[in-house]
Order: sequence, then C-alpha cells, then structure tokens
Amino acid sequence: MKTVTFHGIVAARHIINKYLQPTPLRYYHELSDELGFEAYIKHENHLPTRSFKVRGGINFMFNLPAEQKKQGVVTATRGNHGQSIAYAAAQFGVKATIVVPHGNNPEKNSAMQAFGAELIEYGNDFDEARELCDTLQAERGLYYIHPCMEPALVHGVGTYSLEIFEKLPNVNTIIVPIGGGSGVCGAITVAKAINPNVKVIGVQAENAPAVYRSWKAGKHVETDTCDTIADGLATRVPFPIPFSIISDGIDDIVLVSEEEIQQGILSALRYTHNLAEGAGVAALAAAIKLSDTLAGQNVAMIMSGGNLDLDTLKEVLTYS
Amino acid sequence: MKTVTFHGIVAARHIINKYLQPTPLRYYHELSDELGFEAYIKHENHLPTRSFKVRGGINFMFNLPAEQKKQGVVTATRGNHGQSIAYAAAQFGVKATIVVPHGNNPEKNSAMQAFGAELIEYGNDFDEARELCDTLQAERGLYYIHPCMEPALVHGVGTYSLEIFEKLPNVNTIIVPIGGGSGVCGAITVAKAINPNVKVIGVQAENAPAVYRSWKAGKHVETDTCDTIADGLATRVPFPIPFSIISDGIDDIVLVSEEEIQQGILSALRYTHNLAEGAGVAALAAAIKLSDTLAGQNVAMIMSGGNLDLDTLKEVLTYS
Repeated sequence: MKTVTFHGIVAARHIINKYLQPTPLRYYHELSDELGFEAYIKHENHLPTRSFKVRGGINFMFNLPAEQKKQGVVTATRGNHGQSIAYAAAQFGVKATIVVPHGNNPEKNSAMQAFGAELIEYGNDFDEARELCDTLQAERGLYYIHPCMEPALVHGVGTYSLEIFEKLPNVNTIIVPIGGGSGVCGAITVAKAINPNVKVIGVQAENAPAVYRSWKAGKHVETDTCDTIADGLATRVPFPIPFSIISDGIDDIVLVSEEEIQQGILSALRYTHNLAEGAGVAALAAAIKLSDTLAGQNVAMIMSGGNLDLDTLKEVLTYS
Repeated sequence: MKTVTFHGIVAARHIINKYLQPTPLRYYHELSDELGFEAYIKHENHLPTRSFKVRGGINFMFNLPAEQKKQGVVTATRGNHGQSIAYAAAQFGVKATIVVPHGNNPEKNSAMQAFGAELIEYGNDFDEARELCDTLQAERGLYYIHPCMEPALVHGVGTYSLEIFEKLPNVNTIIVPIGGGSGVCGAITVAKAINPNVKVIGVQAENAPAVYRSWKAGKHVETDTCDTIADGLATRVPFPIPFSIISDGIDDIVLVSEEEIQQGILSALRYTHNLAEGAGVAALAAAIKLSDTLAGQNVAMIMSGGNLDLDTLKEVLTYS
C-alpha cells in the first residue's frame, strides 16, 4: 500500500526546489499586536498557480513512470488541484485531461486551459465529475490522479511545512485549512518527525464539516452539502489516507463560519495586502478565533491559495 | 560626484541576494491572449515591504559607513520609500527617523512604525516634510537619505531589471512606472549595458506629469499639483540624477489617466489575482494602451508595489 512518510516529504523537497522557489513565511507586526501572538503567514498564494497544490503536482509528475508520462493523466477538480496538475503536466510535457462539473467557475476553467490542459465538463458536482475519470482511465489508458489519495501529492505539499521549520525553528503552532486534507497531512507528518511538541490545528468551514465530524465521531461521516464561499474547503466526503493521518495526529480542528471567512479575507487585505481566497484565509480566521489560547506563541498560518474571483471580492467588500 | 553605474547594480545584486529572494517574473497566458503580446509581470509586490524600494533600502544600508550606522538615518516619505528604509534599517540595527506630512495615510504610517522606525509628522506635503530632514541632519547628526538622489538606492532597485534579463533573456520591452525615477533609471542602465535594443518605456500619471513634461521640454519642469490615486507616482518635481539618466536613455514615456489606473487595478485582480497599488499597475495600464505597438513582443511590466488600502480598493471595485 502506498503511504505518506516523512522520508517522502524530504525527497520531494529536493525535487520541488528545482521547480519552485520557497514561498515567504512573513511576520506581520500589526497583526501580531492585534492578536497577541507572533503572527506568521506562509504565502502559498505566491506560487505560480497561486495555490499550495502545485507542490504536489510537481512532485507527482516528476515521479510518474515514463510510460504513463507518454499516455497522459486525468483528474477531476473544481479549481486549484486542476491548475496544479495542468501546470505540472506542462512542465514535464505530459498531456493532462481535467474533468470539471457543469457550471464550474469559468475563471478557474480558463486558468486550467491556459496551462494547456484539455477541459471536459461533466456531471453536476465534483463526485459526478470524478466518475468520468474512471471511464477515461479505462478507455484512454490515462493515469487517474485522485486528488486526495496519492501520497506523492501529500509529499509535495508537505514541503511547505519543512520550509516553515527551517525559517522558524521555534514555531509553536501551525494552522492549516482542511479540504481534501493533503496540506494538513503534510504538516502533521513533518511536525511529528521534527518536533512533536508543535501543535497542528486544522480548519474546516461550518458549512462543510465532513472531516471535523468524522474526527469527532471517530468514523467516516459524510455531509449532504458543502456550500461555502471557501471552495477549497468544499468537500462532503473524507478520504481514507488523509483521514487516518488526521485521526492519529491532529491536535484540534476548528470550524469557521462564512462570516468569519469573509472577515478573514478583509483582514488579509488590510494587514497583508494579499488577495486570498476563502480557504486561503481559513487559518487566519481560526487564529483570530483562538487568539486567547495562542497568546505569546509563534503561530504559522497557511495562506493556501489566492484564487478569489472578482465578483466574490466585491461581495466581501460590501461587509467591510 | 556620486553616479549611477551598471557596475553599481551588479555589485548590489550580490548584496540583495543575501537579504531578499528574487521576485517572480510571471507569464500570464490569458492576459497575453487578450493583449496580443507575451505578457510578463515582475512581482515586486511580493517583496517584504510589498514594494521594489526595499531593494534600494537594503543596498543603501549595507553600504552605509559604520559611523553613520551608529548615528542613524532620516528620510521623508509618503509611504513605500519610508517602509523600505525602516525595514532595511531594522535589518542592520540602524535607528531610522521618518518624516511624513500631516494627514499621511495612517496604514502606511503604522507599517513604518511596525518596522521599528520613529515617525514624525511635519508639514503639509512631501516637500515641507523634507525640510525637517535638513534640520534633523544638522541637529542630530543623522544621515539624510534623499529618496531620489542616492545612487545606492538606484543600484539596489536596478537589480529587478537584472533579474528580468536572467529570466527572460529575449525580453523586448520593459515598462516601468516613474515616480521619483529610481526604478526606471535602473532599468535604463541595465538595458543599455546588456542589450541596447531592449526598449524601456516609462509611465507617469496624467495628473502628475512632471518628468514627462520635463522630458518633452528638455528642461526642468515642475507641476503645481500631483493629485493621483497612484501615490507612488505623485511627484511634482523631477530630480537631477534620475532626470539626466531618463533624458539620455528612455525610449518613451506614456501618460495614464486615473480611470486607466483604476481599470489596471481591476485587471491585475482579475488576471493575476494580485492586489496592486496604483503605481503598481501603471505599467499594465500603459501596456494595455500600447498593445498595438507591442504586438508579438516579450513585454515585462513592473508591478512595483502592492500597498493599496482597503478604502481605495472598495472605491475602485465600484467601477468594475
């Protein structure tokens, strides 16, 4: 069975460094004063696809056997995972086919096509879109990249946590948004290996709490809906590999409301002058909520992505 | 006399590399399709102060004699220059005193204080604030860093142009906003030394056209006002060192209207998902205007800064 290991993350680091610059881990003085802890933000929104996922895409594609590189890959996505695969595939000359549900955000669709991927619209939600991947795998011999079940993806995204430990060796808490769970699994694996005293806190949306509920219940729980402004957190189904790592190693999972996410986007604009998407500010929104318990600590918050569309930005600004 | 040289920029590169990561020069596919040329944006907004000026601050402070480092420095600013000096001074343990005019943007003031600078409010505009610098230089023995007359600042900011040539050796045109002029002087000096066929185009605001008018007239021309949303371009007075370099070496200067700057901010959000300030999108706004003459070229546009405040962002979004 393929598993996630610290060794896999260290090995991925070597590869990632050839293709991507480390992202800044930036200290924000005013935010720190305001919140009562030392506030560091890991700017994964500065990556070429403006999302941490590209680390996983690069590591996956690098390690794909030559034969599969020739055949091509297929995956399903609503956005950042697809951009990551499209971008990484282009770097290695691999043909990528990306399935998105009907009505998917057109800005995200055209970003994937811009990286050279073939886009197919299918089904009414992510899970229906995923079904087509199985068909395409069988019919066209494409390798199906499951967004949450490929250790190579987790190993790649785990490199941001290595970068945090190098830059801020005395970090106390790392706060990570949980959608599919690859980011948080990387953080847990790295923290356990380097310093098990470091706390890893996950964040989910109140409106999409499948992993949170599963973690609380100690068993697989799905939700009927996942209707949140933070589409990077919009999953209804926890996946086995990330769920087992989360169950073993997470220190806490915090839920944030839609209003807290919107306020997080405003805080990111005000204090960091960065445009972040909903999932990208989930860690900041959670940290604001937890500021009492974090007092005095060195806290690293993952700004996981920056792909906020203009309409959502406009709507959010009406609340400021 | 202190002068700007290519050698000075190459020497600065070595220093800058120790303190700052190269900024991304990112290709934007959709923007390229839209505009009909290969659109590359140099993300100076990803620097720690979110502005290119910090390159100059670091280079200046590194080269400041030990005696002056002990005495401290003073400068006048409305924003990004002051953040640069405050940040760089903190890196080298130098005390920085920053003079800002009354009514200066409070977000920018607190950003400078956050980097540890002493802030003094004085006078009603930038030129009055500058007068106090002379007094403080005499009374306190502080070194007065003139924002536009220190070759070390130009050498530092010139390093972004070196990075462009390394990343995109076949660049055809570099478009640079002109406020005080340090950025464009770096670009001219680097382009002349590496490939004189590369065009350097400067951009000013229609509402703050002092350098443009001086360049057209071939002599020093001041303006009475400089009322633009792009405060990084808001200068009424051209300074001798940059003006002589611009006169000798610029290929064109383009004026952009307030509306074009606002649309530029929206285009930056839409196509690059980056929050840029007015001066930061001036190059993009100019490129949109010049798209016919740029057809087919490799064009590098400097996104010089990202310090846009929330109120201005809200106002701009009402035009989308």
